[in-house]
Amino acid sequence: MMSKKILPKTIGILTKPHRSTEVRQLLTPLLPWLAGKGLSVMLDREAILSMGPSPLSVFDREEIARSADLLIVLGGDGTILSAARIATQRQIPILGINLGTLGFLAEVPKEETFLVLDSVISGHYVAERRAMIHADLLKNGERITESHDVLNDVVINKGTTARMIEVEIYANNHFVTEMKGDGVIFSSATGSTAYSMAAGGPILHPESQGIVMTPICPHTLTQRPIVFPESVRLETLFKTADAHVMVIFDGQISVPLEKGDVLRISRSDHVTRLLVSPDRNYFEVLRDKLRWGDA
Amino acid sequence: MMSKKILPKTIGILTKPHRSTEVRQLLTPLLPWLAGKGLSVMLDREAILSMGPSPLSVFDREEIARSADLLIVLGGDGTILSAARIATQRQIPILGINLGTLGFLAEVPKEETFLVLDSVISGHYVAERRAMIHADLLKNGERITESHDVLNDVVINKGTTARMIEVEIYANNHFVTEMKGDGVIFSSATGSTAYSMAAGGPILHPESQGIVMTPICPHTLTQRPIVFPESVRLETLFKTADAHVMVIFDGQISVPLEKGDVLRISRSDHVTRLLVSPDRNYFEVLRDKLRWGDA
Amino acid sequence: MMSKKILPKTIGILTKPHRSTEVRQLLTPLLPWLAGKGLSVMLDREAILSMGPSPLSVFDREEIARSADLLIVLGGDGTILSAARIATQRQIPILGINLGTLGFLAEVPKEETFLVLDSVISGHYVAERRAMIHADLLKNGERITESHDVLNDVVINKGTTARMIEVEIYANNHFVTEMKGDGVIFSSATGSTAYSMAAGGPILHPESQGIVMTPICPHTLTQRPIVFPESVRLETLFKTADAHVMVIFDGQISVPLEKGDVLRISRSDHVTRLLVSPDRNYFEVLRDKLRWGDA
Amino acid sequence: MMSKKILPKTIGILTKPHRSTEVRQLLTPLLPWLAGKGLSVMLDREAILSMGPSPLSVFDREEIARSADLLIVLGGDGTILSAARIATQRQIPILGINLGTLGFLAEVPKEETFLVLDSVISGHYVAERRAMIHADLLKNGERITESHDVLNDVVINKGTTARMIEVEIYANNHFVTEMKGDGVIFSSATGSTAYSMAAGGPILHPESQGIVMTPICPHTLTQRPIVFPESVRLETLFKTADAHVMVIFDGQISVPLEKGDVLRISRSDHVTRLLVSPDRNYFEVLRDKLRWGDA
Repeated sequence: MMSKKILPKTIGILTKPHRSTEVRQLLTPLLPWLAGKGLSVMLDREAILSMGPSPLSVFDREEIARSADLLIVLGGDGTILSAARIATQRQIPILGINLGTLGFLAEVPKEETFLVLDSVISGHYVAERRAMIHADLLKNGERITESHDVLNDVVINKGTTARMIEVEIYANNHFVTEMKGDGVIFSSATGSTAYSMAAGGPILHPESQGIVMTPICPHTLTQRPIVFPESVRLETLFKTADAHVMVIFDGQISVPLEKGDVLRISRSDHVTRLLVSPDRNYFEVLRDKLRWGDA
Repeated sequence: MMSKKILPKTIGILTKPHRSTEVRQLLTPLLPWLAGKGLSVMLDREAILSMGPSPLSVFDREEIARSADLLIVLGGDGTILSAARIATQRQIPILGINLGTLGFLAEVPKEETFLVLDSVISGHYVAERRAMIHADLLKNGERITESHDVLNDVVINKGTTARMIEVEIYANNHFVTEMKGDGVIFSSATGSTAYSMAAGGPILHPESQGIVMTPICPHTLTQRPIVFPESVRLETLFKTADAHVMVIFDGQISVPLEKGDVLRISRSDHVTRLLVSPDRNYFEVLRDKLRWGDA
Repeated sequence: MMSKKILPKTIGILTKPHRSTEVRQLLTPLLPWLAGKGLSVMLDREAILSMGPSPLSVFDREEIARSADLLIVLGGDGTILSAARIATQRQIPILGINLGTLGFLAEVPKEETFLVLDSVISGHYVAERRAMIHADLLKNGERITESHDVLNDVVINKGTTARMIEVEIYANNHFVTEMKGDGVIFSSATGSTAYSMAAGGPILHPESQGIVMTPICPHTLTQRPIVFPESVRLETLFKTADAHVMVIFDGQISVPLEKGDVLRISRSDHVTRLLVSPDRNYFEVLRDKLRWGDA
Repeated sequence: MMSKKILPKTIGILTKPHRSTEVRQLLTPLLPWLAGKGLSVMLDREAILSMGPSPLSVFDREEIARSADLLIVLGGDGTILSAARIATQRQIPILGINLGTLGFLAEVPKEETFLVLDSVISGHYVAERRAMIHADLLKNGERITESHDVLNDVVINKGTTARMIEVEIYANNHFVTEMKGDGVIFSSATGSTAYSMAAGGPILHPESQGIVMTPICPHTLTQRPIVFPESVRLETLFKTADAHVMVIFDGQISVPLEKGDVLRISRSDHVTRLLVSPDRNYFEVLRDKLRWGDA
């Protein structure tokens, strides 16, 4: 699913923490280059910190979310997941510059930053629209206390002390199953190559709109991952008392779960628009990352 | 996905071979009952054989495919897969009466035959529209020699002597991977609980439109099942010489594969319309068949 | 591996907490019955609590470990794992009376308590010798701070906040692999049907002497469970800083792990002697617990 | 398990078919080199064929099995499996020279042939003793018609047409389970990284003495691989009629199975003595072959 051309005016720059040397090396030529193209830039706190003493202002996430029309992310897949939450409301396109090893999401190697940005601001890049997951957490199954749109996954995961947790799963108000085990993952196609895969889940091609539910170390051997259609409305009732169990949104936001809490999962009304090269090939990334076909 | 009401006039009856006693016991009261409702009946060869000497005519599959507007299938899931091919062109709805243990497709227990049929012909049943897979086999990658629409799966499987086979997979003309192993399964959502699951594939909810590709005993540990979106066009190039390898359509039609042959897979333009009770619950069947949640 | 007959004089009774009604119902006739056979009885705190006001003395775990020559365990598999640690030093035989559903270890249904005990004290029961695992935890890889003999497993498991942990595995001083993921399980044959199985590990027949290492949600798809021979000496170097990670002995004793800690695993010099009926059939338990062969 | 030094006098040379160029290039310098060391050489038919017109005599497998006290195998893992059957009776040590990519068994790269052979004939190499599997096939469960000692595995595998096969498994005369599916693999530790692994089986360290039973695409999701102790005696009753099903010994000898046939599996009294470098590290091979720890 490709959308119309991107012609940005204001660029938000979001950066991975604790990588100040690499970030500075990249920003030092990048900022004048962007200015030379007539583009405004909004830097986040980490970017400013990496630059040392500087007259540039810090912008907070809300300001960037309101004003930027392109997000450049310097980091890895984790930084992009975080950027996706900023981008959600106005569906700001995201370009991921990779500071380390190739990621599934941060696909541009830092050496190619200027080459790629040149293409992007001349409108030669297109945005892939990636399905997101919407999650609501209801305390005692009643009042929504958390509400997130995530790009990868929502995970219920037992802590170190709990021996096993217990949830009931409902789909479109039908009882699906009771699960006992370490937890359960609700993943988008994009997230299917992340934690869900480590737990034994299938790969979903990025254009797949479905939601995969992958049990983590299930007590019952027959509980296989299930791929639900995009129209599904899932509810998970948490049944274990006195456990240190968390629901974790995109691996970044953790909220404790209590007995009686309900987690609602559905496809988000929003998408993440990832800027990708017209030459990009998903299967090359997959082969490279998973070492497919080797040996 | 539910479609409009079924109000049949001519009923085709398709039966599982080698079950003549059970078939006769069911047909003996069923035929006068259907006649009493003013319905015409077309019996297949197996049905006639089970009845013993009788004035009734045999209808062949082509005649039934042309004229019936409801198929009653006496048998199990295999008999329904076979009926699905007859039903394809005119999308005749199918009602599966189960002669043995509960099936994923043949859901009506034989004891409830009359109760259910009464509902069906009064229009109280609805047809679930199940996605099918279209497969073309091209000799030397050129001339289509086989073309099938299947409800469950298309399988490439090595024979007993071959040690390992080798295929190349392409999706929308992009190279995906080379697979070495016992073979590969292309399955619809409906087929996901059959052979694909035994080979380690995920469950796809029946409303899922995607196609799952599941490797069989892959040589490379990283080759996980992939779920493709419904728009995918897959091509599999068969690369092994001198092997007794078959491509098998819905477990019923086997065609030998030769080096250079290409198997094309896409979503079918047709669907299978399965009659299901309004009270039916897919997850109950799943729990019952897979023994979910037990132990 | 069967050992010589059991002819006990002093019986320790260990009981599952929070099951006082069932425990009392069983102890009320059991205590006079054992006295009638001329046997001394040592009750643990939970047993005494369940009996209500009573002249009986509580014995602590150390006293029972020193004096009992048979342990009767009222509870489930967890209670037996706990009893196995008491029994280790003197290899006291254990008889598990099941208060709930059939366990892998607690195999006697409570209805059969007296029938079975009669057989046991007449020497008609035999003790299966189950291999145990010895584990040492070395702070900074130097000083042993924890040392346990366990019947089931030793588990390194990430907490809810940590995204992934990293360990290096050595076998007999050879580097085996680096693992990234949720953790790793070292399991005996007895423990192979518990947590290791939920994480994808194989079943080890109870007479198998090997140790199975099962990764939990490994980041690298190729990291399969490995079965090591009984002679193996495994070392796991924990490499992640600032994580809430635990090493857990038999699911009951949790100790925090720090970067640089080393976990040493080898076969224990001790065994657990489980009393089993001469008619017992391991595969029946396996079929019953795993629902093998059904569906 | 390492055994005493190897000091050979008569060397059998076994070669992979259809690799005449590589074999000739290696034999041309190797034969005079061995003669110069005062060693007799026995060449198999493939070796002679690869040499072109030559005064050297062909020795058949039986002659080599009777007289050689070292087998040099030019080929890959398959050629070594075949050599292992020749070596069995007199437990002749085997040195595998790899003509292609690194194998689990054929570990010496051809470039190092002379270096390694020099070490071997000076007694600096040691033989690893690898457990083998003994298999008897009984027609109608009565008369032994086939009897093999194999290094890797014994496989029951359905042909292309059969939809599913059915066997009953017994261990030490106890019923274990009924299996429906594509077949079943009985593998040694050495074979555990071959076909058994592709079917989902665990890795067994080469010093493990157990036998792993791995179902192939089992119909029942709960049928996990089981590791049996070395003392086990397994019997498999084949129950399917009219199928083209084979039992395959080490991937090389195929025998048709009929309903009522029984396959008996136990640990062999023989071992395969594989010559390995004292510097060899099993885990390096494993990491290299399985791509462990990458990505």
